[in-house]
Amino acid sequence: MNRLQERITTSFQAQGLMATLGAELALVAEGEVHIALPFSERLSQQHGYMHAGAITSILDSACGYAALTMAPPGCEVVTAEFKINLLRPALGDRFLAIGRVQNAGRSLTVCTGEVQAFSGTESVPKVVALMQATIATIRP
Amino acid sequence: MNRLQERITTSFQAQGLMATLGAELALVAEGEVHIALPFSERLSQQHGYMHAGAITSILDSACGYAALTMAPPGCEVVTAEFKINLLRPALGDRFLAIGRVQNAGRSLTVCTGEVQAFSGTESVPKVVALMQATIATIRP
Amino acid sequence: MNRLQERITTSFQAQGLMATLGAELALVAEGEVHIALPFSERLSQQHGYMHAGAITSILDSACGYAALTMAPPGCEVVTAEFKINLLRPALGDRFLAIGRVQNAGRSLTVCTGEVQAFSGTESVPKVVALMQATIATIRP
Amino acid sequence: MNRLQERITTSFQAQGLMATLGAELALVAEGEVHIALPFSERLSQQHGYMHAGAITSILDSACGYAALTMAPPGCEVVTAEFKINLLRPALGDRFLAIGRVQNAGRSLTVCTGEVQAFSGTESVPKVVALMQATIATIRP
Repeated sequence: MNRLQERITTSFQAQGLMATLGAELALVAEGEVHIALPFSERLSQQHGYMHAGAITSILDSACGYAALTMAPPGCEVVTAEFKINLLRPALGDRFLAIGRVQNAGRSLTVCTGEVQAFSGTESVPKVVALMQATIATIRP
Repeated sequence: MNRLQERITTSFQAQGLMATLGAELALVAEGEVHIALPFSERLSQQHGYMHAGAITSILDSACGYAALTMAPPGCEVVTAEFKINLLRPALGDRFLAIGRVQNAGRSLTVCTGEVQAFSGTESVPKVVALMQATIATIRP
Repeated sequence: MNRLQERITTSFQAQGLMATLGAELALVAEGEVHIALPFSERLSQQHGYMHAGAITSILDSACGYAALTMAPPGCEVVTAEFKINLLRPALGDRFLAIGRVQNAGRSLTVCTGEVQAFSGTESVPKVVALMQATIATIRP
Repeated sequence: MNRLQERITTSFQAQGLMATLGAELALVAEGEVHIALPFSERLSQQHGYMHAGAITSILDSACGYAALTMAPPGCEVVTAEFKINLLRPALGDRFLAIGRVQNAGRSLTVCTGEVQAFSGTESVPKVVALMQATIATIRP
């Protein structure tokens, strides 16, 4: 594990919510982070699909950590705001949130992201959500 | 409990995520729904505050249920998209998400919402998040 | 005209787009700015209503100037991002954009806003758009 | 000019605002539309850059027309909402708004878009804005 992965992993493991949801860090690269989440009835909405809140939680975290991979050493990041479109019902066995940095400014980083749904019966994942997020860099 | 409260309560209790988070329905009125969530380390981000994902989950549900209170009988609602600003760290003992209908159209309902943070040491809650959401009405 | 009004008016008059659209500053107060825009076919979309771009332009400016009324002396503001819901067709003789500061932080100010449509035949304006915006403060 | 280009061109030419801004349709393809806008002081904000409202107007139109290219015959489209991030000052001689369909549902189409700034002195355009938009299909 390199220094970048260590930095993100340490922070991820300190997030109570990620453990409660059952989310796992799947990839850490410069400007891109993936978070995986298996389906669970504990995370459902009223029709049995994955709740938009769970989908949003992993995608917000993926975008925030993507921003953190490009923040100067010693800096923290915090989500200022995001917008998410829920394209279709979040049906699947497993979900993968992908956050990517689009522009890293001095004080604000803009990320886009998507959540892909994987289902046992289908070979190609379906994109169930799209996000556009603004992350603030907090200097020490 | 009147018919409106019954409709929302039945749906709320079918949401696995709300139980997993520990959220409770606090108020149901025509065009306005409140959801309460006590702080828990199980829902934290890396600095120990409430995770934006938990804050977002209850606010998305409050907006969605506010829209449902004004949907024609037999219709379902589904969040098409939302945008949330996180105004300050979500510090507090208890959080209250308030969703309100601003405009109920034939196929789309627009809601705004906020999350208030209550802390033992302060008499006035602080607004920690603002949302603007678009909810689609699904006709049978 | 007090110092606050002078600061906003000077900046407003330097915006080529506001003159091109025919927009006028209607109110400047601490944390709240109104901009008025009469209907014109020059600003229409394909069905003859006011184009969403014109509605958005005056509402973005109203939110930005509301933020500027609360920025420290010598600071500039710039819109980082916004989200707008277009609630109904922008039909009317005259439109009023209202921007209000919801939270003024050190580096980011969050505003909400609406555009009201006034029509000769109706006594009460209709809200045609809702905005939630993030404005960055640029320190000298 | 094929039928798709005709459909979009006819609508574009009926938009008073696009003519007032000086915008031109640059490309029409299935699911993607480009709109070009030369810089003009008539469209500036207070520091002489292109106003966010002008940038937003062409990007909103590009996303809306991208959605229209995929709408069933006889249907109209209308922007329900969008969110835009302004990544850097809109400096340039010419701007190109690119709207792309990401998901075309029965009643809602989700598009993403960007505005590229071209400057005489630079060979590669800079992305100055990112949009995520929801377009409603209006059936006859």
